[in-house]
Amino acid sequence: MTDSITISVDAMGGDNAPRAVIHGAHLALKERKNTRFIFHGIKSQIDPLLEEFPDLKPASEVRHCETVIAMDEKPSQALRKGKGVSSMWMAIQSVKDGEADVAISGGNTGALMAMATFCLRPMEGISRPGIAAIWPTLRSDIIVLDMGATIGADARQLVDYAILGSALARSLFDTDNPTVGLLNVGTEEVKGLESIKEAGKILSEASGAGFTYHGFVEGDDIGKGTVDVVVTEGFVGNIALKTAEGTARQVASYLRSALMANWVSRLGALLASSALNALRRKMDPRTVNGGVFMGLNGIVIKSHGGSDEIGYKSALGLAYEMARSRLMDKIGDTMQRFPIHKPAQEQPTQSEV
Amino acid sequence: MTDSITISVDAMGGDNAPRAVIHGAHLALKERKNTRFIFHGIKSQIDPLLEEFPDLKPASEVRHCETVIAMDEKPSQALRKGKGVSSMWMAIQSVKDGEADVAISGGNTGALMAMATFCLRPMEGISRPGIAAIWPTLRSDIIVLDMGATIGADARQLVDYAILGSALARSLFDTDNPTVGLLNVGTEEVKGLESIKEAGKILSEASGAGFTYHGFVEGDDIGKGTVDVVVTEGFVGNIALKTAEGTARQVASYLRSALMANWVSRLGALLASSALNALRRKMDPRTVNGGVFMGLNGIVIKSHGGSDEIGYKSALGLAYEMARSRLMDKIGDTMQRFPIHKPAQEQPTQSEV
Repeated sequence: MTDSITISVDAMGGDNAPRAVIHGAHLALKERKNTRFIFHGIKSQIDPLLEEFPDLKPASEVRHCETVIAMDEKPSQALRKGKGVSSMWMAIQSVKDGEADVAISGGNTGALMAMATFCLRPMEGISRPGIAAIWPTLRSDIIVLDMGATIGADARQLVDYAILGSALARSLFDTDNPTVGLLNVGTEEVKGLESIKEAGKILSEASGAGFTYHGFVEGDDIGKGTVDVVVTEGFVGNIALKTAEGTARQVASYLRSALMANWVSRLGALLASSALNALRRKMDPRTVNGGVFMGLNGIVIKSHGGSDEIGYKSALGLAYEMARSRLMDKIGDTMQRFPIHKPAQEQPTQSEV
Repeated sequence: MTDSITISVDAMGGDNAPRAVIHGAHLALKERKNTRFIFHGIKSQIDPLLEEFPDLKPASEVRHCETVIAMDEKPSQALRKGKGVSSMWMAIQSVKDGEADVAISGGNTGALMAMATFCLRPMEGISRPGIAAIWPTLRSDIIVLDMGATIGADARQLVDYAILGSALARSLFDTDNPTVGLLNVGTEEVKGLESIKEAGKILSEASGAGFTYHGFVEGDDIGKGTVDVVVTEGFVGNIALKTAEGTARQVASYLRSALMANWVSRLGALLASSALNALRRKMDPRTVNGGVFMGLNGIVIKSHGGSDEIGYKSALGLAYEMARSRLMDKIGDTMQRFPIHKPAQEQPTQSEV
């Protein structure tokens, strides 16, 4: 019925690769039958796993490569060693070559970002790539970016993140006009960094071009789901994400010890176990696994390095949905509609920023 | 037996002032009998409240002032209007004059910081004040600073925060040698901002001088309680704090809806209600109310503006403990022991940084 979606997979990336990767692909295929996989990695390790999952085999192609990037390798070192030969690079190369719609890796984030940027190159008009997270909130899932692709961002880069994030929101969520907020330390116009204030002015003027600019938001607005897209600089985004993860684990741990405190509370917990399990599923970080590298000429998804098969299934599902909803076209469309990008494109060739 | 501790209180600061302030003082006095209060504010509003709490009256003195700083006033405006006449200023002035050991206000943070800095002045050797939060973690309470007193911090300012934070940890917690971590986006030495790397070098060399330097920590280390003191720049600290608050509320809300899902889970929740109430108390933000302004010649505590009497009771208890444990002496002592502050004190007069 529909065309198939091809996902290019670094089968060797992550702590539990390649088993968790292949097992995750098996689970992802069950949910989305028209997925095709290109697995890049050590064939002698991948083939036996495909025998274990016979349904997956006809939907898969294996491309052998010997070189595997270690989780602790420095980006520059990984790039020198892995360019053109590693499973990570080859997974990205398949997107560049048009064989795959999207690439995914659970490997080392810095190395993946370096390779993706080097291989795919930033989109014309976008100065630097960003990593977007899908963040569950009280209202619905939202997009938060940048999660640490780069440290520091000027006004123009924050505006780029707003363009990329709103295209992702239009792609994944049921909205044509997502709301965008700039993360700041106060909602009054006067507060915050110069770069954020300047970005606020630009976004105010452009509001309506594929998104609605909401204004400044604060840290607690993320969990509330005040806006569809929260834009921030990478250092702050990374700290916010990890602080939230830490807090969620902390509260879950408090809850466990509270419920185990005495036999009456244990009995209560037993009776409420289906509700508590639903809560556990809702808070399971594996269900929202995957950082999306945006702003490059192609989509690359970073799965969490410690993911098991459930984590990979989620990340592969996310990859599928982004390809299916034509994310790249949506980004191009938002950029076309965004006034700032017209004067900036005076030079027809891509400029280095 | 012990000397009394005198707290100077801006009775008019905060949304529920003066009632919540006076009621909170009444509750705080019950827990710490040798507390004395100087209430600054509109006498005709404070006196009737003291009649309601007859135990509080003999421990209190009321100083009338007409001028009240509004919650939305800009710091510069508040300073012009309120210097020398407002309840906020006079509460701080009592510390400067040596009448009170510590000052507290639930008023507008920016105005309070401006007045505190103007009235008390930064300590010699400390370039800028910071706001410290007491943060509950899986291990125990820890100190996180700066929570947004200023935006941006160079290496030296981060080092100052480490000195101030470790003095506060020695003052409030049962430790002579608190561990200090620098908040960063990765634990590898190579990552992060220059200012953080540079501060890391200075702290490594000084480790042992009243604290132990742990190294870089990430956002999720806050909730784990990896170190006693987490040092960060104010913008990031503020976003981290509010993101954590938002996440805690989000999880609590998920839990409520999960437990209300069906009658079996409701029955379970009823049986486990004492455990769930204990959890609620543990997560109650009112029990850790109070940002501590540090680095000035005197201690000022900011209570949350929306606090009720329970919030004020906690903040007043915190104020008491800091005065009792001689926080100011502990800061002076850490500075004496810290090598960087010796060469920096070539000029005997306080330099502007």
